[in-house]
Amino acid sequence: MEEPLNVPRSIRVREVGPRDGIQSEKAEVSTEEKVRLIDALSASGLAAIEAVSFVSPRAVPQMADAADVLANIARRPGVFYSALVPNRRGAEAAADAEADGMQVFVAATDSYNERNVGRSVHASLEDVREVVEIGREAHLPVEGTISVSFGCPYEGDVSPARVAEVSMWIADLGIASISYGDTTGMASPRRVAEVVEAVRERVPGVDINMHFHDTRGAGLANVLAAMHLGIGYFDSSIGGMGGSPFAEGATGNIATEDLVHMVHDMGVETGVDLQVLLEAARIAQGLVAGELPAKVLKAGPVASAG
Amino acid sequence: MEEPLNVPRSIRVREVGPRDGIQSEKAEVSTEEKVRLIDALSASGLAAIEAVSFVSPRAVPQMADAADVLANIARRPGVFYSALVPNRRGAEAAADAEADGMQVFVAATDSYNERNVGRSVHASLEDVREVVEIGREAHLPVEGTISVSFGCPYEGDVSPARVAEVSMWIADLGIASISYGDTTGMASPRRVAEVVEAVRERVPGVDINMHFHDTRGAGLANVLAAMHLGIGYFDSSIGGMGGSPFAEGATGNIATEDLVHMVHDMGVETGVDLQVLLEAARIAQGLVAGELPAKVLKAGPVASAG
Repeated sequence: MEEPLNVPRSIRVREVGPRDGIQSEKAEVSTEEKVRLIDALSASGLAAIEAVSFVSPRAVPQMADAADVLANIARRPGVFYSALVPNRRGAEAAADAEADGMQVFVAATDSYNERNVGRSVHASLEDVREVVEIGREAHLPVEGTISVSFGCPYEGDVSPARVAEVSMWIADLGIASISYGDTTGMASPRRVAEVVEAVRERVPGVDINMHFHDTRGAGLANVLAAMHLGIGYFDSSIGGMGGSPFAEGATGNIATEDLVHMVHDMGVETGVDLQVLLEAARIAQGLVAGELPAKVLKAGPVASAG
Repeated sequence: MEEPLNVPRSIRVREVGPRDGIQSEKAEVSTEEKVRLIDALSASGLAAIEAVSFVSPRAVPQMADAADVLANIARRPGVFYSALVPNRRGAEAAADAEADGMQVFVAATDSYNERNVGRSVHASLEDVREVVEIGREAHLPVEGTISVSFGCPYEGDVSPARVAEVSMWIADLGIASISYGDTTGMASPRRVAEVVEAVRERVPGVDINMHFHDTRGAGLANVLAAMHLGIGYFDSSIGGMGGSPFAEGATGNIATEDLVHMVHDMGVETGVDLQVLLEAARIAQGLVAGELPAKVLKAGPVASAG
């Protein structure tokens, strides 16, 4: 029954909870707790963890201890610990702290980019260029992230041609892997197909990562749609940590355990031991104030997804 | 972009909140409130509503007023108001109360059937036969439901061949439309494909309805998988009313507004006006104790799904 499903045999999962999740939680999380969570995650077999960000501690106080976190985790061989960076200063800090790689971000729309970092997408390309340069000097791979790729809270629909154009701009600066962020959960299987088609046409060589939110319930449906298109690289957050930045109480990132559970039951490999991952989910639940939205921890896995 | 998505142009949505949802809510819901909810749902353009069940009032006190509910709703032309019935007595009551149709149910496994209605699947077939007979006399269409079609909380995996066999048994008794219940949320896109393949091989003419739960987060992914297989008939519950019967606090039925929202954004027609449906969701939220799990009411629809 593998062929009729028409999905990749294996996918890569990049865990973003320690950065993207904790950053949007209101509860204060200590350096020790972050280290404990990251170590629990790396024990599960996850290949990549977005561990920290190097951003202004005034803007994002939750990440002020990023260097300490990277210094104290137990680096597990084979696990790729990356840092999100907005600019040269962040990239230098990430290199100094010995991150394994960096992600630099721009938005698909000027409205979002301006509200997020105070300048146009074009102006942000200069930051991307500088981060790529530092990555090259420090021998650190740099991946890109394009926010609001499936819709923007300020502009509404975002044309796939625009997403492809921004992709081309950052690919031209030396970015070979791009994550498409569904920042406010507006994606649907149709939008996924349209973005993938447009990007592949304009930037054929680029490695595509999908970063979906479950804000409107279609998170795993979008994963399935992307897998049908041959995409095999996804972001997700343990426990579904990290709410939507634009709707109070709404769900944000898709949950790593729910993603892994579904694809395992489909016979798709992730390299992750679900039981160990659920242990990390319990730790994540202990760090935050409210009940995390992930479901498999609550309902228990089916046997075949074990 | 319609063709590459490879899904039906339109789907039928059967709303099950007034029966399946309210039945598992702890809060008491008055006849007037049920009528108000059903009328709000029928105003949205939904073609089918599972309005009530005629079961033992001792077993399910929330449905003791089923006849009163059917007597007091504003019957909207074109809307199919059905009743769930377990046996001859229920079917007679449904016919007396002028339901438009009935659903009769058996489980895919004996363990589940025995715990649910106190007898084996084979013994339940006699009930199915009698319900079909009464339906024929009263000129009421009878649809079937097979619970735990994608996994059983007592037996674990359920073989698709078994689901197809039970389908054949009830089809032979005169059932032309069968709903496959993911009673405890164990379905995945793989299981959906396997069940559809087995059923189509064994009972080629049967009309397939999918009744998914979102207990482990894959509800809408399973809808997408089924649509890719040409399935165009789905159950869902307004607000996601009705928890999982086997995991405290876990999500049950997929939410009608999240389903409609996703497929509309894909260009799939449902006949439903999403804004009017969200009005019904607000009414549903007012009837229950906790916060309903549906997401689009909280986050708001994207413009194109309007």
